[in-house]
Amino acid sequence: MKPAKHLESIKPSYIREILNLSSSKDIISLAGGLPCPEAFPLDLITQLMPTIAADSSLYQYAQTTGHPALLEHLKNHYSLTATQELMITNGSQQGIDLCARLLIEKGDKIVVEAPSYLGALQVFSIAQAQVCSVPQTIDGPNLDYLETLFANNTIKFFYAVPDFHNPTGCCWSLEKRKHVAKLCQDYGVLLIEDAPYRELRFSGKTLPMVSSFCSEHAIILRSFSKTLAPGVRLAALITPKRYTPLLNKLKQAMDLHSNMPMQALVLALLQHKDFERHQMKLIGIYKERYQTLATKLLPLQHKACDFTAVEGGMFIWLRLPECDTFALAKAAIKKGVAVVPSTEFYTEQTTQESAIRLNFSFNEPSILTLAVSKLIGVIKTSEQVMHNF
Amino acid sequence: MKPAKHLESIKPSYIREILNLSSSKDIISLAGGLPCPEAFPLDLITQLMPTIAADSSLYQYAQTTGHPALLEHLKNHYSLTATQELMITNGSQQGIDLCARLLIEKGDKIVVEAPSYLGALQVFSIAQAQVCSVPQTIDGPNLDYLETLFANNTIKFFYAVPDFHNPTGCCWSLEKRKHVAKLCQDYGVLLIEDAPYRELRFSGKTLPMVSSFCSEHAIILRSFSKTLAPGVRLAALITPKRYTPLLNKLKQAMDLHSNMPMQALVLALLQHKDFERHQMKLIGIYKERYQTLATKLLPLQHKACDFTAVEGGMFIWLRLPECDTFALAKAAIKKGVAVVPSTEFYTEQTTQESAIRLNFSFNEPSILTLAVSKLIGVIKTSEQVMHNF
Repeated sequence: MKPAKHLESIKPSYIREILNLSSSKDIISLAGGLPCPEAFPLDLITQLMPTIAADSSLYQYAQTTGHPALLEHLKNHYSLTATQELMITNGSQQGIDLCARLLIEKGDKIVVEAPSYLGALQVFSIAQAQVCSVPQTIDGPNLDYLETLFANNTIKFFYAVPDFHNPTGCCWSLEKRKHVAKLCQDYGVLLIEDAPYRELRFSGKTLPMVSSFCSEHAIILRSFSKTLAPGVRLAALITPKRYTPLLNKLKQAMDLHSNMPMQALVLALLQHKDFERHQMKLIGIYKERYQTLATKLLPLQHKACDFTAVEGGMFIWLRLPECDTFALAKAAIKKGVAVVPSTEFYTEQTTQESAIRLNFSFNEPSILTLAVSKLIGVIKTSEQVMHNF
Repeated sequence: MKPAKHLESIKPSYIREILNLSSSKDIISLAGGLPCPEAFPLDLITQLMPTIAADSSLYQYAQTTGHPALLEHLKNHYSLTATQELMITNGSQQGIDLCARLLIEKGDKIVVEAPSYLGALQVFSIAQAQVCSVPQTIDGPNLDYLETLFANNTIKFFYAVPDFHNPTGCCWSLEKRKHVAKLCQDYGVLLIEDAPYRELRFSGKTLPMVSSFCSEHAIILRSFSKTLAPGVRLAALITPKRYTPLLNKLKQAMDLHSNMPMQALVLALLQHKDFERHQMKLIGIYKERYQTLATKLLPLQHKACDFTAVEGGMFIWLRLPECDTFALAKAAIKKGVAVVPSTEFYTEQTTQESAIRLNFSFNEPSILTLAVSKLIGVIKTSEQVMHNF
């Protein structure tokens, strides 16, 4: 009756632990990746829900791949090619898990960016993959390093977040997008492009998805958690059609299908005439919050801290002089601010940047301002953890 | 980029395939396990949904284990002991998958009833368990056979559906419940008690759950799909507390948490003053439908067909003279009736009873009557598949 042995190595999620801690009223959390709750489209939801409540067909068992009308809408919306298929999942987190279960056998090698989204790292650890990391530069992965990995190993897939990366906020350049797509094609490596933040661009120009240059070699994760609301737990998984039969069987075994009333709600929201207005409002809020956080952090640059400006997403990656970021994060909580230390976003094998991830989507500007003033205090007095000051 | 090898052996779900086929208007389906759609509590749902639509807290990321107030309500409702814990899952299907991922390492032995729920068999096949089967008698598993299995093998768990079993409708006797619980305790085997049909009793007396006699050695799956509505994809997983930390990590990696608005809806429904009335109505409908199906099947008993009367649930297991039940089911579809052949509910190693599973929850009495008349025609003319007639 003992649990499976390989589960012993799963790390608990620092962020989930911190979320518990930082639900205390005295702590301002810049730790989570929570969307702005004031921007949930509640006015639209309250309009649409009575119809959904009364539609008996939404309460029966349904098709594994998803609500047929939602599938149809999304296939058009995302301009699927003739060889692509789409499935509804319980958030992109389930999409990542589906990919891992579809593709990974114990010991299989995969590549992730370093640093990377820790929810994905957790999935790959449970699947017992051998995780290789490619260092990230300011405009995407180190291409030479990536090619060497691809050339010298049998890599099942490369999992990446090219738009407003979590945790760094980095957005890949057009050059790197094309180059990575070519490498995936040349070396027969599947690209898993996770794009939850793609619609959250508040400046600069939208770039084509990496997968658009290698659609036959790509799986794409499109989430509704950031543009709509995470509580409904819905996302779309786009894959080459050759994977569809097995993905259906896996999803069926996992939970038969995703919940139907919320699929109908997502469809109705996406088709609502005011949905674009909602998205514009959301992006406006994030732009303001980002600018507040970025401006308030400027004084820290005198302290040898540094961050790269972002054009969208939810995070600023504040690089610090080499230090124990975990100890710093703990010290920050004691002063009433929760942040995530960079250690959480790396697999153990990699050299790690000293940094903390700061979220700007959740808190109002005045709270962000207060949080930064506390954080500056912590960093200034943290000479015991930050020797290079 | 090839899928994981062990997935090649997953069988497609006959029922899901049949569901596609039998959505054709000309075919009456007795194949699925679909609840009666006219009994979904739409009057209550339409009353409750506006409040849920307007509650901003339901749209944010939330606790992995579930909506706190729902957890609280269910812990009381199911009278959890001090050493038990409860988690919300996306239907019991996800609960079964969670158990498999928690407990099974490739090659681990588990026991299921023969026949058994095929959604569970699919999960155990994906998990690469070695599945042992215990033959079922009219009032539960063959105890001698079960004890021999437990004594001669290291068994991780025994997965069973003691109340109105799927596919046979069998309900374990009190004696067998106590005896199986004792065997689980004596041999250190975990019991996974799947109870989706337990509330669907329309005659006879409710018996204690098997797990109530061995709660420290039991995981319990309680579904809302049959009493409330399957489209919301929600269920409760009750486990000994020692499994909680790992289950939380697994659920977190699988999809972070289950959808929140539907959890709030389930809570509001369970707390609604008219929910008991809804349940009584539902049971009344099932009783009537069962009686119709059972009565109409009586003429078949002259054809050496036989079934055991059931006191609840959704299914009648119609035993046939030894024959190719798969061919019979195909012949039935051609005549406009979909049923599930017994072959689908067994793992390959077991000796199989010739039978078909007939669902009585979904169709109105007049349709059930029509379906049986067609089915009798098929059976009468199926001498080529049923040589013992």
